Amino acid sequence: MSNIVVTNCPRAERAIVDGLAACGVATVHEAQGRKGLMQSYMRPIYPGARVAGCAVTASMAPADNWMIHVAVEQCQEGDIVVAAPTSPGDQGFFGELLGQALLARRVRALIIDAGTRDTSDLTKLGFPVWSKAVSAQGTVKETLGSVNVPVICAGAAVAPGDVIVADDDGVCVVKREEAEVVLAAARAREEKEDDTRARLKAGELSLDIYGMRARLADKGLKYVDYADYAAGRTEG
Amino acid sequence: MSNIVVTNCPRAERAIVDGLAACGVATVHEAQGRKGLMQSYMRPIYPGARVAGCAVTASMAPADNWMIHVAVEQCQEGDIVVAAPTSPGDQGFFGELLGQALLARRVRALIIDAGTRDTSDLTKLGFPVWSKAVSAQGTVKETLGSVNVPVICAGAAVAPGDVIVADDDGVCVVKREEAEVVLAAARAREEKEDDTRARLKAGELSLDIYGMRARLADKGLKYVDYADYAAGRTEG
Amino acid sequence: MSNIVVTNCPRAERAIVDGLAACGVATVHEAQGRKGLMQSYMRPIYPGARVAGCAVTASMAPADNWMIHVAVEQCQEGDIVVAAPTSPGDQGFFGELLGQALLARRVRALIIDAGTRDTSDLTKLGFPVWSKAVSAQGTVKETLGSVNVPVICAGAAVAPGDVIVADDDGVCVVKREEAEVVLAAARAREEKEDDTRARLKAGELSLDIYGMRARLADKGLKYVDYADYAAGRTEG
Amino acid sequence: MSNIVVTNCPRAERAIVDGLAACGVATVHEAQGRKGLMQSYMRPIYPGARVAGCAVTASMAPADNWMIHVAVEQCQEGDIVVAAPTSPGDQGFFGELLGQALLARRVRALIIDAGTRDTSDLTKLGFPVWSKAVSAQGTVKETLGSVNVPVICAGAAVAPGDVIVADDDGVCVVKREEAEVVLAAARAREEKEDDTRARLKAGELSLDIYGMRARLADKGLKYVDYADYAAGRTEG
Amino acid sequence: MSNIVVTNCPRAERAIVDGLAACGVATVHEAQGRKGLMQSYMRPIYPGARVAGCAVTASMAPADNWMIHVAVEQCQEGDIVVAAPTSPGDQGFFGELLGQALLARRVRALIIDAGTRDTSDLTKLGFPVWSKAVSAQGTVKETLGSVNVPVICAGAAVAPGDVIVADDDGVCVVKREEAEVVLAAARAREEKEDDTRARLKAGELSLDIYGMRARLADKGLKYVDYADYAAGRTEG
Amino acid sequence: MSNIVVTNCPRAERAIVDGLAACGVATVHEAQGRKGLMQSYMRPIYPGARVAGCAVTASMAPADNWMIHVAVEQCQEGDIVVAAPTSPGDQGFFGELLGQALLARRVRALIIDAGTRDTSDLTKLGFPVWSKAVSAQGTVKETLGSVNVPVICAGAAVAPGDVIVADDDGVCVVKREEAEVVLAAARAREEKEDDTRARLKAGELSLDIYGMRARLADKGLKYVDYADYAAGRTEG
Repeated sequence: MSNIVVTNCPRAERAIVDGLAACGVATVHEAQGRKGLMQSYMRPIYPGARVAGCAVTASMAPADNWMIHVAVEQCQEGDIVVAAPTSPGDQGFFGELLGQALLARRVRALIIDAGTRDTSDLTKLGFPVWSKAVSAQGTVKETLGSVNVPVICAGAAVAPGDVIVADDDGVCVVKREEAEVVLAAARAREEKEDDTRARLKAGELSLDIYGMRARLADKGLKYVDYADYAAGRTEG
Repeated sequence: MSNIVVTNCPRAERAIVDGLAACGVATVHEAQGRKGLMQSYMRPIYPGARVAGCAVTASMAPADNWMIHVAVEQCQEGDIVVAAPTSPGDQGFFGELLGQALLARRVRALIIDAGTRDTSDLTKLGFPVWSKAVSAQGTVKETLGSVNVPVICAGAAVAPGDVIVADDDGVCVVKREEAEVVLAAARAREEKEDDTRARLKAGELSLDIYGMRARLADKGLKYVDYADYAAGRTEG
Repeated sequence: MSNIVVTNCPRAERAIVDGLAACGVATVHEAQGRKGLMQSYMRPIYPGARVAGCAVTASMAPADNWMIHVAVEQCQEGDIVVAAPTSPGDQGFFGELLGQALLARRVRALIIDAGTRDTSDLTKLGFPVWSKAVSAQGTVKETLGSVNVPVICAGAAVAPGDVIVADDDGVCVVKREEAEVVLAAARAREEKEDDTRARLKAGELSLDIYGMRARLADKGLKYVDYADYAAGRTEG
Repeated sequence: MSNIVVTNCPRAERAIVDGLAACGVATVHEAQGRKGLMQSYMRPIYPGARVAGCAVTASMAPADNWMIHVAVEQCQEGDIVVAAPTSPGDQGFFGELLGQALLARRVRALIIDAGTRDTSDLTKLGFPVWSKAVSAQGTVKETLGSVNVPVICAGAAVAPGDVIVADDDGVCVVKREEAEVVLAAARAREEKEDDTRARLKAGELSLDIYGMRARLADKGLKYVDYADYAAGRTEG
Repeated sequence: MSNIVVTNCPRAERAIVDGLAACGVATVHEAQGRKGLMQSYMRPIYPGARVAGCAVTASMAPADNWMIHVAVEQCQEGDIVVAAPTSPGDQGFFGELLGQALLARRVRALIIDAGTRDTSDLTKLGFPVWSKAVSAQGTVKETLGSVNVPVICAGAAVAPGDVIVADDDGVCVVKREEAEVVLAAARAREEKEDDTRARLKAGELSLDIYGMRARLADKGLKYVDYADYAAGRTEG
Repeated sequence: MSNIVVTNCPRAERAIVDGLAACGVATVHEAQGRKGLMQSYMRPIYPGARVAGCAVTASMAPADNWMIHVAVEQCQEGDIVVAAPTSPGDQGFFGELLGQALLARRVRALIIDAGTRDTSDLTKLGFPVWSKAVSAQGTVKETLGSVNVPVICAGAAVAPGDVIVADDDGVCVVKREEAEVVLAAARAREEKEDDTRARLKAGELSLDIYGMRARLADKGLKYVDYADYAAGRTEG
């Protein structure tokens, strides 16, 4: 139960990571069987960012951001820092100076199950953060945690090297070993959606495209004209 | 207690609907006696949209968006879909493909007492959604609900054909039968506010414009100079 | 325990107030020893505003905005109105007309531990509001409160004349008597951060800049290679 | 849109009401097709109460309990007062004195989508209250509302005379016209559950009682021995 | 801005404190003009306790309970410890051992705007705690705060020596200098309520006792028979 | 990514499990280095229960309790079912009939990151449940999940066979492989606390027992007499 920093963690391949970013959170989440999604309270500090990267994890004591400083050294280009305190808090564990530190190492984003601050500076820098809160309240550097151990962040399990995908819809985790398979599934899904999209834009109904009418009828759905409904000539 | 889809529901008149959109949520809500407002957790996925339309309602099983697919067929130009699950959840019941389906029918917006996803695509499409949450978590299509029956959405009762007004301040429901009267009241309110606005910009005080001083004094409000207050020469 | 309006309250000096605005909330909060921060649920109605001003306070009955009308008359250029109901509510206590009234007196912002409405009009006017909620629900004018007495707003104590600093990170209160000292401390902090920022951008680590390595080792932090960790050759 | 008190509202029959109380909230909610349930934040001030009664409704201005006083006069033996403000608040709209007033009229409970106070006195009196909050914060008597009009309370629509069922599981509304049918369905459900209960206590599995195994297999559920799973000899 | 422990703070008189306890939170809060109430999320760990005492305050760093240990030494018989962290958290800052320490000094309760733990042991000991949460998550002892300085606890300002009244309805603060006046007002209120209670139990209506009928009619309240209302023979 | 039920999972030893129950959640959580604690929103349906058992896990689709039925068959005496939906909801996934089923297999408790119902029946049965909510809202049986795979429940990772400890303070997870070591550490902690408790009851201060005074002074804590403080004769 000691506090450790695990070094030289393997990462998912860059091309796979970038492919997952292009697919976006909703598609990736579906493609991997609806697992790995963080809670919906994780929101970006500015709209429009869409990124993916390999997780460098930081497990932090409550209201103590020391392990983010330690994590910086473990980061390399294309990483995303995933930081979670061991009990909930909305303090600002992260700000513009740490953002500079991560940008200097070409880190792509921060995902933090707590608060962040300096959001307008971070927005100007173009460094995206997904967080639970925005707060100017600082933290201390007194109690050890660990870096690059498995953490739970906003309800999702994250291991170092896993792929993090984040956009306006939230944050999703793809296990490193499954990233390639998930990317293939996500791309297949996108192709299928392209076809559906074209049909919907042309005015077809999803009831027909997905063939839902028979099953709806089987389950007992009934159509009633408003005139009958309003007159009470229906049991509904 | 069967599951039904009510067809051919009457709608409020287009001109009245568009008039209510121009007035906006706060004015309409006041004009109809402060009723029909949805809870303040209903937020737009992007700022700046202001719309009104006639409600097509969907009552859905928890975490099940099947009835939105059924509702699409009941929509016509100028409608707004109002969707509510029978128990709370923040799943993403709606995304870009359903947005395409609604746009193809010239539907103006979605109001959903649950989550939505694909928010950046929906923003690009210019299809506004007011929701309780943003979440990539999908739903299933297994359990029937009903379409175009009365629903409660975010604390407000909505009947099919009612006018929904939505902007950055939230979402308000105007009963179809009352829409014309409410529009007249809203416009009267706007005119009165135009006058008040001009006087306020010219530096008059609302204390004087609304004639509040006598009533404040009657109720016992006292003015105390800071010097007296700080010296304890007042009972306040 | 009567209801009073305190007039002619002293304010902090304009130059100090403007200096604090330039420093921003996070820096000012740190500089004064991490006190005076409002709860993180206080959010701006639009991003990018950064202001400071002298507090004119309004203590209001629940769902009753009468005292804001009374407060307007006590405002002068450079002030910020700080309004708090005596029990929580998300009603829209404030809207565009009151915004016009405050702009006419060159008030810089409203801080309200409740809801606001007309947010898109206020955004167009460039009048910033930090609030707990956005809601079109109006309030009444029936029950007295007080103006320019000490209030608690979103968890922070505010006395009339105190300096309020607000930006995208939230809202912080600086006691009037401490404003000059806090400004000096904030500026000193900024200078130090300029140096740190330059070193971080050049790739130095905060572990080295702040000299943290020895203390981390003392507390027992251990570095473990992933290969050893994965093979279980570590106690961590 | 005037403020009214509707008098002499019809009620559901006493025997049906009492029958529904005996069934309890969960059974009644299921028996009527899973509708009419209030949000789960509605909690009893003490455990163990189970009641049913006919709704006398009060629609109240925010933080204003005047209409509860008006509602008392409309109550008769066997009623339950259902009170909802037009916008959310946790103030204590109700206390022991109003409890005495309702007890004097043999009212059975209060359901309030807001706060209550004097909870320990009310507990001693044996007058059950289901509320959103407990708060000593009082309210005013300044703004009219209405009594015995349809209200929405904690997300459920309530008409005067509807049956309210409340116990430790929450609060459910049964429409007056449906009460007899719902009672019959609830009793049928109880009988069926008696049989299921006996079989479960005897050690039978619900998988067998409900015949679920085939459908689970059809959907693709697979059983894997831990030894194979741990060794990775499975795709799961 | 240093960290201090203020010693030998004056307290309110014991007889006044005990008198306020007997009146309870709701009565005391009303009697002092509806001020000083903590937020309604402050709940007792067990029902039925009603206490009053003189505040010994602890301002604590987030997730750090060191100052409670320091505060113990400042306590004397009849005190109540009021502890608040400088930013929100639900960690268990307090447990059974600290409860023993406070009991040894005849302290009457703890009020904490954070979490507590060992609640079943504290219940057995009969040491009441009002808290925001129950959590087994411990805290650290690393960062200084202050003892017996003014704090804000759950939205209420507390100075050392102020009277804290707490029961099932929540927690209220009475300023030390006002305690005697408030007690007199609370007792007067109780007497008046005794009379009202007797009349209500005898079946009189508060509409008559408080003489509300004329004012209701003035404001426009109308009574409508259900038969007319249902037939639409009313404008309501 | 198929749906599986893992059978014959190893469990922690019964004697160790029972030893951990005796220690309770707060002690066990501390003894294992402050990890494994579920979020503080997990509350028991009745006070006073303290249990431990081996986890049988159920990963469920949102608002769908099918996998609890499947999990029952995998339970044996001394187990605790840990059930978590893949996205948040407060529906009542569990009730008295399933309680009977688990009691028939001598299961000790249910831990569910969602709602439960029939709480008064479950209380009478003495079957303890820790849940996020109480709700009569039922669920469906339509979508597969998995049983005895790793889950995240209320923010804590749980593997089948892990030890779950639950009492009034919440719920804590001890990894199966670490259970013996944690029990030893917990018992050591209890012994140490026995000594501390005796000293505290005798009136010693934790400042002295833990030797905190020197470190407090080092960090700069100062003691100031109230008379000096009130007179401003201190910098604090």
